Parts: sequence; C-alpha cells; structure tokens
Amino acid sequence: MLQLDFHPTGRHFLQIPGPSPVPDRILRAISLPTIDHRGPEFGALGRDVLDKIKDVFQTRSPVIIYPASGTGAWEAALTNTLSPGDDVIMFETGHFAALWKAMADRLGLNAEVLSWEGKDEYLPNAPGWRHGVQADAIERRLRQDTARKIKAVCVVHNETSTGATSDIAAVRRAIDAAGHPALLMVDSISGLGSIDYRHDEWGVDVTISGSQKGLMLPPGMSFNALSPRAIEASKTAGFPRSFWAWGEILAMNADGYWPYTPNTNLLYGLSESLDMLRAEGLPNVFARHDRWAAAVRSAVVAWGLPILCADEQCYSSVLTGVIVPAGVDADALRRLIHERFDLSLGTGLGKVKGRVFRMGHLGDSNDLTLVAMVAGVEMGLRQTGVPLAGSGVEAIMAYLGSHAAPGYRQAAATPGAA
Amino acid sequence: MLQLDFHPTGRHFLQIPGPSPVPDRILRAISLPTIDHRGPEFGALGRDVLDKIKDVFQTRSPVIIYPASGTGAWEAALTNTLSPGDDVIMFETGHFAALWKAMADRLGLNAEVLSWEGKDEYLPNAPGWRHGVQADAIERRLRQDTARKIKAVCVVHNETSTGATSDIAAVRRAIDAAGHPALLMVDSISGLGSIDYRHDEWGVDVTISGSQKGLMLPPGMSFNALSPRAIEASKTAGFPRSFWAWGEILAMNADGYWPYTPNTNLLYGLSESLDMLRAEGLPNVFARHDRWAAAVRSAVVAWGLPILCADEQCYSSVLTGVIVPAGVDADALRRLIHERFDLSLGTGLGKVKGRVFRMGHLGDSNDLTLVAMVAGVEMGLRQTGVPLAGSGVEAIMAYLGSHAAPGYRQAAATPGAA
Amino acid sequence: MLQLDFHPTGRHFLQIPGPSPVPDRILRAISLPTIDHRGPEFGALGRDVLDKIKDVFQTRSPVIIYPASGTGAWEAALTNTLSPGDDVIMFETGHFAALWKAMADRLGLNAEVLSWEGKDEYLPNAPGWRHGVQADAIERRLRQDTARKIKAVCVVHNETSTGATSDIAAVRRAIDAAGHPALLMVDSISGLGSIDYRHDEWGVDVTISGSQKGLMLPPGMSFNALSPRAIEASKTAGFPRSFWAWGEILAMNADGYWPYTPNTNLLYGLSESLDMLRAEGLPNVFARHDRWAAAVRSAVVAWGLPILCADEQCYSSVLTGVIVPAGVDADALRRLIHERFDLSLGTGLGKVKGRVFRMGHLGDSNDLTLVAMVAGVEMGLRQTGVPLAGSGVEAIMAYLGSHAAPGYRQAAATPGAA
Amino acid sequence: MLQLDFHPTGRHFLQIPGPSPVPDRILRAISLPTIDHRGPEFGALGRDVLDKIKDVFQTRSPVIIYPASGTGAWEAALTNTLSPGDDVIMFETGHFAALWKAMADRLGLNAEVLSWEGKDEYLPNAPGWRHGVQADAIERRLRQDTARKIKAVCVVHNETSTGATSDIAAVRRAIDAAGHPALLMVDSISGLGSIDYRHDEWGVDVTISGSQKGLMLPPGMSFNALSPRAIEASKTAGFPRSFWAWGEILAMNADGYWPYTPNTNLLYGLSESLDMLRAEGLPNVFARHDRWAAAVRSAVVAWGLPILCADEQCYSSVLTGVIVPAGVDADALRRLIHERFDLSLGTGLGKVKGRVFRMGHLGDSNDLTLVAMVAGVEMGLRQTGVPLAGSGVEAIMAYLGSHAAPGYRQAAATPGAA
Repeated sequence: MLQLDFHPTGRHFLQIPGPSPVPDRILRAISLPTIDHRGPEFGALGRDVLDKIKDVFQTRSPVIIYPASGTGAWEAALTNTLSPGDDVIMFETGHFAALWKAMADRLGLNAEVLSWEGKDEYLPNAPGWRHGVQADAIERRLRQDTARKIKAVCVVHNETSTGATSDIAAVRRAIDAAGHPALLMVDSISGLGSIDYRHDEWGVDVTISGSQKGLMLPPGMSFNALSPRAIEASKTAGFPRSFWAWGEILAMNADGYWPYTPNTNLLYGLSESLDMLRAEGLPNVFARHDRWAAAVRSAVVAWGLPILCADEQCYSSVLTGVIVPAGVDADALRRLIHERFDLSLGTGLGKVKGRVFRMGHLGDSNDLTLVAMVAGVEMGLRQTGVPLAGSGVEAIMAYLGSHAAPGYRQAAATPGAA
Repeated sequence: MLQLDFHPTGRHFLQIPGPSPVPDRILRAISLPTIDHRGPEFGALGRDVLDKIKDVFQTRSPVIIYPASGTGAWEAALTNTLSPGDDVIMFETGHFAALWKAMADRLGLNAEVLSWEGKDEYLPNAPGWRHGVQADAIERRLRQDTARKIKAVCVVHNETSTGATSDIAAVRRAIDAAGHPALLMVDSISGLGSIDYRHDEWGVDVTISGSQKGLMLPPGMSFNALSPRAIEASKTAGFPRSFWAWGEILAMNADGYWPYTPNTNLLYGLSESLDMLRAEGLPNVFARHDRWAAAVRSAVVAWGLPILCADEQCYSSVLTGVIVPAGVDADALRRLIHERFDLSLGTGLGKVKGRVFRMGHLGDSNDLTLVAMVAGVEMGLRQTGVPLAGSGVEAIMAYLGSHAAPGYRQAAATPGAA
Repeated sequence: MLQLDFHPTGRHFLQIPGPSPVPDRILRAISLPTIDHRGPEFGALGRDVLDKIKDVFQTRSPVIIYPASGTGAWEAALTNTLSPGDDVIMFETGHFAALWKAMADRLGLNAEVLSWEGKDEYLPNAPGWRHGVQADAIERRLRQDTARKIKAVCVVHNETSTGATSDIAAVRRAIDAAGHPALLMVDSISGLGSIDYRHDEWGVDVTISGSQKGLMLPPGMSFNALSPRAIEASKTAGFPRSFWAWGEILAMNADGYWPYTPNTNLLYGLSESLDMLRAEGLPNVFARHDRWAAAVRSAVVAWGLPILCADEQCYSSVLTGVIVPAGVDADALRRLIHERFDLSLGTGLGKVKGRVFRMGHLGDSNDLTLVAMVAGVEMGLRQTGVPLAGSGVEAIMAYLGSHAAPGYRQAAATPGAA
Repeated sequence: MLQLDFHPTGRHFLQIPGPSPVPDRILRAISLPTIDHRGPEFGALGRDVLDKIKDVFQTRSPVIIYPASGTGAWEAALTNTLSPGDDVIMFETGHFAALWKAMADRLGLNAEVLSWEGKDEYLPNAPGWRHGVQADAIERRLRQDTARKIKAVCVVHNETSTGATSDIAAVRRAIDAAGHPALLMVDSISGLGSIDYRHDEWGVDVTISGSQKGLMLPPGMSFNALSPRAIEASKTAGFPRSFWAWGEILAMNADGYWPYTPNTNLLYGLSESLDMLRAEGLPNVFARHDRWAAAVRSAVVAWGLPILCADEQCYSSVLTGVIVPAGVDADALRRLIHERFDLSLGTGLGKVKGRVFRMGHLGDSNDLTLVAMVAGVEMGLRQTGVPLAGSGVEAIMAYLGSHAAPGYRQAAATPGAA
C-alpha cells in the first residue's frame, strides 16, 4: 500500500509553473460525493460553470470544457478547425510551442515554424526561446501568402518552458494588417487566470487552456474558448474526430450537460475556483502576479544570473526561468534542492535541458512562499558552488517589503478590521 | 456562488450504473495536494498504479491510463490500431455499443453492425437490446470474410444501457474457430472491477475501461489494456493521432511518468481503489456483485415487471434494467422518485428512452442501500399507478436475509471479533 | 497501522440516536487547516458562531461553547449555579437522567429523584422510563418546599435512552404555579436542532446541549445556554471550578475569543451546521423530524412490538425505542444486524439493557435511509425468530409515500426546476 | 454565511507555538464519517490509540484521553489526586505556569509559588520568565516540609509562553533527594511529541498534555498520563469530580471505550498522528526539532535581539521567544506581520504582553517554512523601524544549509531513490 502523502514533515513547496498549488477550498470541493451527470443537480452545476468560465477568458462566446488534460485541448483546437494537409504557421517560443508543432506534424498538418532569428550567447542552440512571438514576422509571412493557403496562426501566450509572455493583441493586428483570413489559435494554458487574457478583444478564434495553472485546480480538465469563425470552420473541417468534436458538446451544453461523462469532481473545483477569482477580481489577480514576478526577478538580478527570457517586454508574471552558469547541471541542482528543502522547481525542457531551471509564482501562493522559494534556490546554488553576485533573498524581501499587495488580499486578510 | 452539496438532508442514493458512489477513502485521497508530475514522488505513484492496475484487468500486458473520460478510451482503441476506411465488426447490444459504432463512423471506419435477430414483444424496435453478443453470428461473419478484410471485432462486455453481460471468452473462441486474424476489442467500462474480466485469458487485444464504475472513482480517467498484437498493430495504424498515441506513453510509463500532465489527484484515488480491491480480493468482489444482482432481480420478478435483459445467461451483476408497462413514462417515474426520495436511477437511453429505467448495484454499496433503492422505486411505481404483482422490497429482503455475503466483508465488519 | 475507514463496501447506516450522521459539507469544513485561536480570523469565526448559535436555542441570552463533550456541559451547569450540599430535584425519565443524577451525587449535591409512579407490564423494573416528566409531581414537590431549600429542578427534554420528549413549558408553568425560585435546568442534548426547543419562552435557566445530535457535528463540543438568573446564580455558587467557569468565558466571548484553546475545527463545522439549519428554517427542520418519527413508529406498530415510550404525548421525533419480546436478547439482535447489514442501532441502556433497541431518526438523514433502517431491523428480527404481526417496511413505505416532506427539502432537491 | 477559508491566496504561515500546522493526512483522517462510539469498530479504534499513545509519553502506565482541551487536563490532574485545601508547590516559569497556579487557587488548593529569584535587565517585572524550573529550590523547599504537608510539585516541562524547557529528571532527583512523597505533576502540553519526554524514567506521576502541539492535531483532546501512585492517590482524593474522574474511564478503556461520548473524529486524527510519529521514530522527531530551534535562534542572534529564555540549558526546541526593544509594541509588530505577510506569531502573554513575540517551530513544518517565518519577521521588524544587527534570514539559511536534516526525512523525501 502506497502512502500517498509523500512529505514527512510540513508542506511541500510546489514552485513549478503548474500544476500550481491547489487551495484548500478547492481540494475540499473536489472531494464531495460524485453526482449523477444526467440529473438536475448536475445541470445546475454545468450551467453555473459554463457561465462563469467565460469571464476568465473575457469572452461572450462558448467555452468547451474537456474531461482531459491540456494536451488534448491542443488536439481539439487543431482537429475541429482544420483538415489534414492544411498549412499552418506556428511560432516557436519554447518547448511547448515545439510540442504543439510536433503534434501538428503527427496529425498530418503542414506546419511552418517561425521563430526569433537573432543570436544568443547563452543559448546558441535556442535563441528564440528567450523571446516572445514576433508579430511583424507573422505579418510578413502572411503577406507572402497571397493564395491564402495558410489556414491558421498558432501561438503560445505564456510559454511555460521559458517564461515569455507574448503580445497576442499584436499578433491580431499583424493578421489584420496583412488582411489575411487565417484563424488565430492561442495556447494560454499557463497564462489564463494569472495574467491578462482577452479572448474577444484580441480576436482569438480558439484559446486553449487547462485547469492546473491559474485556475488552481488539479490537472485533468482543459478548455477551448471559441469564436463564431472557429465554430463556422468546424463545420467543414476535415479531420476525423469524435471525442474532441465541438458540435455535440455545444448542443448539450445548452442545458448544462455533456454528451459523455464529464469529470464531475473537477467541475466542483472549477465552480469554487471561479468563485474565488470573481471575489478577488481579475484586475487584482493580475496585479498580484505582476508584483510577485517583479519580486522574484529582483532576486535573480541580485544573484547576477541571466533570466531566461531576454526581452523585458515579454517577462512572464507566471514563472521565471534562470540560466545556470556553464558547467552547472541545472537538474542536479534541482534534485539537490528537492531533497534538501522539499522544494520542486521546473526543469529545463527540450533544447534547454540542464541549462535552466524555472520558478513558478502563480495561483495559490503568497509573499512568504516566494521568499522561501528564493531562499531554497539560493541555498541550493551555494551548495552547488555557483558564484552569486549578491543575495536574492535580500532582494526579494526588499521588493516585497516596499511594494504593498493589491487591495483585495489585504482586506480579506484582516477580517477583524471589517 | 453555487452551493455544491446539493442534498439538504442525508445522503443521496446514487443508484445509476455509474458514476458509482465513491468511497470516503477515495474522496479523501483525491483531495490530497497535487504534486509535481515530474518529481520523484510522482514516479513512485506512477509505478505503483501502473503495476497494480494490471491485476484488475487480469493481464500482464501494459495498461494505458488516460487523463480523459471513457469515451476517449474508445477513440484511443480504434485510432491506435486501425486506419481510416478499415472494416470492423461491431455488435449492437445496446446504446453504448451503438455510440461506439457512431464514433467509428465519424472516424471514417467501415463498421458493420451485427445484432441479435429475433423479435421482441416489449421492445419491437430494439429486440437486440435485450440480449448479449451472439458469438456464433460473429463466427459466421468472419468465416465469410475469406479476404481477411475485417480488421477488428468490437464488442461491449457489460452493456451499461441494458444490463446484459456478454461472454467474451465465447467471442474469442468464435474468432479462433474462424481462424480469423481480426483484433478483439472489448469495452468493459462498466464491467471491470465488478464482474469477472480476464484480458489475457480471453485473448483480448484492447480492453477499454473507465474510472467511474467498478473502480469507484469519480469520472475523468480511462484505460486501454493492450496485447502484444495490439501494440504491433499500433505501429502501422494509419489514423492521425497524438494525444491518444500509445507509443510515447508506453515509453515514459517505464519510469512511472507520462508524456503530458496526468491527472494526479485521480491517480491518488486509483492507488487507493486498487488497494481496496486487492484487500477484498477480486473473487470476493465478483461474488458480492453477483449476490446483489440476484437480490435486485428478485425484486423485479416480484413486481411482475420484465427485466430488460431477456437472456438469463447474460444478466448483468452491475445493473438491472426494467421495462415499464406501455403508457408509463419511465423518465417521469424517475423524476418523481428523484424528487420524492433523493434517489437517482439510470434513464432509458436511445431506442429505449422512456420505456425503461435502470438500477445500478455496483461498487461502494451494501445490502441496505439496495433495499432502500428497491423501496424508493416501489414507492415511485405505486405513486405512478403502475400495477405490481407483489412486493419487491419483501423479495429483496427475503433474498438478502437468506443469502449471506461473501467472506471478506463479514470479517471486515467485525473488528471487535478479530 | 489502523485502517480508519472500517466499512469495506458502502456507507455504514449510523442509526443510533447520536452521534448522528455528519453531512459531507460539515466533514469538509472541519478538515480545513487550523488557525490561530488568537488571531483576527478566529475572532470573526468566534463572533459568527456565538451569534448564530442563539437562534437554535431560541434565546437572546449568551450560549457558552465548551471544547468538551456533553457530559462536561452537565457538570458545568451544576457547578456554575450550585454549591456542594444543595438540594436539587431531578426527574428520572431514563438512563441519561439517571446518569445526570449520579453525577450530582458524585459532586456532592443532594439530589432528590422524582419519577412516574405507575406500573408497567413490560418493564416492571423501570416503569418511569416509559414516560416523560410529570410536571404536576414537580409542582407538588415544590409546594411542599416551603423553606425554599430546593435550588434547582433538573429535567431531560429528550431522553435519548428511551425516546420520550418532555413538556418543558409545563415544567416552567409548574414551577411558576408553585411560586418557587428554583432554577430550571434542562438537558436538550439530543433534542436541540431536531425538535422545537425554546430556551427563552420556556424560561429555562440553563440548557445543556451537545454537538453530535441535531447539530450534526462530530462529538467534542457542548453548550450551556444561560439566563440572567443563571448568570446571577453563578456569582455566588460555591463549587470549586475553573475549566467550566462561565465568567471568564463570557468576558472573552465578547470579542469572539475564549480563555483557553477552543476546538477550532469543530467550530468550522458549527458555523456550517448553523448555516444549514438557517437555510432550511427551524420549522422545516422540526416538521422533517416529526414526519420521520411518525413513519418509523408506523413500522413498529406494524410489527406489533411495543414502543418503549408508553405515552403518545411524549413520543420523541429524534428516536424510537422498541421493546423486544421476553426471551429475546436485544443486544444479540443488534450485533446480528450490525454484522449482517452494516447498521448500527442504539443499545438498551442501564435498566433496560437487553430489553430494548433504539432507532435514531435525526439530523442528516432522509426517507430511504429510514426505510433501509427499518428493513435492516426487520430482517434481523426475522432471523432472530421474533414473531411479527406484519411488515414494518410496508408500513413505513406507505406512510412516507402518502406524506410529502416539508417544503424546503423538496425545493432544494430540484435545482433543475428552479 | 461565513467563508471559512480565510486566506485569499496561498497557505497561511501558522508559526505560533500551537495549535501547530496540521498535516494533510490528519486533516483528511478527521473528516471521515463519525461512527458509533459503542460499536465494535470504535472498540478497535479505542484500543489502537490507547496502546499507541503510550509510546509518545514513553510510559507503560495508562494514558487518559479527554474529549476536552488541555486546560481541562490540568484540572483533571489536580482534582483526581488532591483535596481542597491541599498544599502544592508550583514553579512559575511563565504565563502557563501562572495560569495553572490561578486554577489551583480557584479550585481551593493552597498553592505556593517558587520562581527564579535573580534580576533581569530586560524584564524586571518577570525575571523568572526567562528561566526554567530550579530543581535545587524545589529540593530546599521540600526538605523544609518536615511534616510532609506538600502533596504535589507541579511544573511545566516546556513553557509555551517563554520558550524555556525545564529539566524534569532533575526535579525528580530533587524530590528523591529530599525523600519527599509529593506527587510530581508535569505539564508537557507543548513539549510532548516534539522534545524528549520520559514519563516513566523521570518518575512523573501525572503528565498533562494536549493534541494541538507536537501531536499535530487540532485542539480539542487532552491527556493525563498516570503513574501507579497517582492512581492510588485518586482513590482518596477529596475533590468533587465526575467528568474528569479517572476511575470509570480506566475501567471502560480496557475494552477501548469511554464512559461518555469521546470525540471520535479527533481520535481518527490521533491514530494517524501516532502512526506518523512512529514511522519517523521519536529520536528523529526530537533531532528534527532541535535542529530547527538552533536554526531559528541563529537568526535571532544575528538580529541582535535578546532571546526571551536567558538560560541556554533551557532553550526550547519548540518555540523561541524574542524580546523587542523598549518602545516597540510587539503586538503592533505582530499585527503588521500578519496583515502584510499572512504569518501568525505568538503574542507576549501576561507579564510580557507587548514586550515579546514568539516563533513556533514545531510539528508539521520544514526548513523553508522556517526561513519564510524568519523572513516575514525580519521584514516586519524593518518596517517597524527596529534596528537590526544583521540578517536573520542569512543566518538561518547558513545554519540550515550547513546542517543536514536527520535521516528519516531525507529518505522519505526521495522515493525515487528507493
């Protein structure tokens, strides 16, 4: 019999960029008894979450909820709107963009990859992984496509593998400037619910997201937010599909149900999560993450280590990647930190394996948790013998001490004052 | 804010044939904090469940665990082993067999449907829905296929929509007797963990199952148990696929990990569930369900209402369908029972909508829960004005009172005696 | 390592008259992380429950919440208001009244016991245990006490050991009619929150109650509802006391705190419980229990077995005691029912040990649960060879089927209709 | 309706010296359904915890478990062994020793207070609160008591209000050296389960403890560990008592039951807690706390602030009190830290109110949690304008980084390596 609570003393510090720490309220909610997915109580639950979820995407269009992980929602976005052999443009901002591209290849799409084209002293093999999407490159490419063969532009909003947040509004402007009819598909799996994301305003056709990041849920649920054009495209898309097919889901969602068994208990958690985000207010949520991210970056700067994202305009408020000095094995460092300090950090994925580690600062966290994370990393760096320019812990403490948190949190933390 | 605990007083009686009532142990397990799906603790969890899950399928081959609902596992079975346009035989035993067939159509397979060919006085439009798979019909059809164009035979082990359990060993013998190389794919979504199922001994190539029935978990996780031939077939199968593709999953499972984010918290529940089934012992689990099913049927017989499954050899130990008299709306009856007695029953699906209701007797249940279910149904039948031949409650009480439960439960129920 | 979830399959039927089954909402609430009992969040929690708890007692006076079980609250009531050697009248309605009397003896009070004085064919050794408090006997006794030496009248509102509910308003009228200054102390441990109880209107000086009955919480918390006279009496009461002393508690409660560590997690549950009762409305709560009790009694009548409570005016809506035929060992019957049907019944306590069993019908229960209970008892009676006049299960089904539940429950059970 | 999860983002840092943070395993355990406290399952539970609890006290004598908070267990120790008017010696090491003394007064005991008699520059009004028990003073006093009128010596093992741990073995030696028959009663409410405590070896007659400290449970359960002499004394003790009386409890504990309703759900948690402590091993548990305490003190030393406990021999491994500079309001500091950093610290109690704050480092904690605590305190000190000699965070990081944790934790944290 496996002991499922693995950590013998105290709470584990789960500082990977998702799955993020799940609030106690949500863990309790998902442990309520499962109900009949065809009964009236479920219908009430279904209508509740299908309505509230739209706010987080900032959309008035339908949001599809899949009882599946985020990777499935990638596949759903592609197979519902496209046909085998279709041309699509994908922009490689990091490992997840690359994985999505690999999926497109496996599905038989003709995916063309754009990327940042400069050079990088630290990561000569992956210079583009230090930058966000270049909207002008997309515009140029679309203008060349006079035959309008390109059916979709696929970009990642917040690249979880690097910590670069791309300007989706700029991508929309680029497509419009080129007068191109391609659909715009955006992965905001790790951005949604933590940093500002506007499905409607930015004219996104399909937004892909998942439960285990800003929504602070366990993994196992994923999303496609649609646009009228995406729905229209789905009617003629040529991919064989059944589980992922939007049509039947949309039809049954009208009453709060799904064509096949939804994952009821995660929907309990989603309802709770959406109540929490609504109570805090999205602007407060975004400001909270922005402040945390600035604080964590101040620590990295104090250490004198390069932030993985090289473009300040694209710094992610969800996670911060750090490049370790040549000769240091970032994964050995992570293992040491895990074993000594019960702190999980994100690994370097794909092209940057062993060269970087990532610190998550999203969702159900707070100031001291982030100080603890920075302290754990700093102790690990020292034990590994990495020379540091200064104290990251001092830096983050100075930052947090001098920058008050956004309003809601303060108010909620002092019920006695109310 | 939605109040997620919908039932104001007392426990809801969830007597649908799945999702089944989830044991308290499992609900507590899935509420433990989510961990890093790439950390060492997760690897230990992954190896634990990947090992233990084989016992329930009675297989030594790998079992794929999807972070998705059961319908997805149907799609996975088809797309991993077949190619668009392939010929397959499917046997229509009820609504889920029909849904699987519809999926095959949507995916572009050439699915030929066999079914029981007799007549039925009660359900003239769906006579085959009162019977199990006819192995001899499959054998005949395969013998005709001298060109060996048929790539797979797809059958449902326990048809959840009707309560008929088919003889899978007989299907295997039929295929062998015909000397046909077709793969055998079996949906045991609602049979696994409740009634005897032997993936290896019966020579099944892909078994599809899900979390929310005999495994007593919330929905959101599904399975493909494989055979060496199925794995071989997957290497040349022509369907575009990515999320469902076995290869990468099998490779990463070796260390207890998955290529994309698994649903960690349901895996906690799975580990707990498998420990519970192992502690009770599969033979005890099966005997427990057999006894319950016989008891529930005795009530239906006492009422004088026809059991949906017309073939005693195929009576399901997981659920019992009941045909209501002509003129009675089975769904109105179910609604009344739900509103008056907080009892959820299974609806009549597809061709039998309004004509039947289904009583689940699986998983985390016990004698008195089933008596309560029968009582709730009986009160509902009376209030609806359905003439009853006798008392179903008396019948089930007589049955349960005179048939002792299998050994384990008794032993466990009397710790004081130990 | 002990496996804490003792029941291998399905939910245990906990049909004792308390601890009552705890609703899932409350179980989740008490599992939230413990907070600082001196911090501002706790103050908010403390003020919340201290305010809401008054409604359940129907009082505007303070209610003391002890981090202790109900027996402690008995002691608190006596030692806060009385002095060693004081004369008190106690009315023996059953085992708990007798236990309270024994406590008074141990504490050095001079407790005089009144009881119903008739004869009883079934329980010749305990005739008074089949009746409630006789207010006229109290009045007579108080009139004799011209010296006004009697300091308190102590009665049990709902005698948990027998199922007799006494008329507290009549006791108040009796004291007033005698013009006697004795304090009125009432144990409503098992009545509060299930049957009508009016601390202020009935002029009760101290009401004792506990968490594990109508409040549907686990045991571990108990109450003293006070009156101005009781508070006054506490200032001169002569018992040495510290833990139970009201004064310091009342002083600190003003801000929502306690002088020593309160049981934080049960207070979470209390807050949730009081929200649930408020949402349902006390009149609905009482009507719900009245209906259940009548239904259960109809089953006992059908069996032809005597109800322990011989006075219809005193039938308890919380539990029903049943006298088994001479020669039958009620505890052997209970054991058999527990082992065979996972159903816990209340034992015969003290003078009626072996002669009776008790069925609880309180708190978080519902119609089918009670039918299941009656069925389990009936199967046990049959297996024990007890001759039954008729079917109790048929009787309770007939009763419940023809008596609709009070309003709230129906409305809440049909969210789809709302 | 009160929102019970008060902390809007992230986990609260509960760094008071108890209630300590409750492990997730225990929170899940206490949320299992309540069972019949007179049924066979409960008997198994009762015997389990009554057996395992002895190990933590390091005793073979019985341990009484009260469904009440720790203050009640103080009262129980006194009233079970003594008579009104008895002489007892109590040693004032801090606020809790003073509270226990006040209780003795209220109960009518004749309590004489000893204390450290030196002078203190920082706390001239409470010099004794910076020291532990002086065994030699006790010996002197007992030698004077030639009439053997003193019935008991009452000391606090770990003074929660100050952070001084007294040498109980020395107290025993002092009593023995004086050849005095007084009982030795020890409050180890906050020491048990965190620092070495040996009821039998140290010849303690009654040890008082509680659930919410080293046992890592919510408050609501408390303990008296007995000795044969204490049990003997209880037979002639003159205090009126009922709820707290040992005799009946000991009799019923033989079978695993209690005379009145025990708090079942906390007993679930106790069983889980004792399993956790047993798995780790008490020596590992103690070493873990010792290391943490040394680490936290290194931070205080770095700040240049005086540790409340002035005697290095008595430094507590459970908590560290800190004296703030004159003119600083320690409670205003605590409030600021709570509001800004979601960190709860212990207040200065009684004579040291406003002059000190206390940092808990006990139970379910870990290295980074303590670093976070020190960081939160340091930021608060800076914002309050307290001049600091150096960085406490740097100091604790240096300490933890250079002192590896005891064995068990490391092993458990690396399941992948096993």
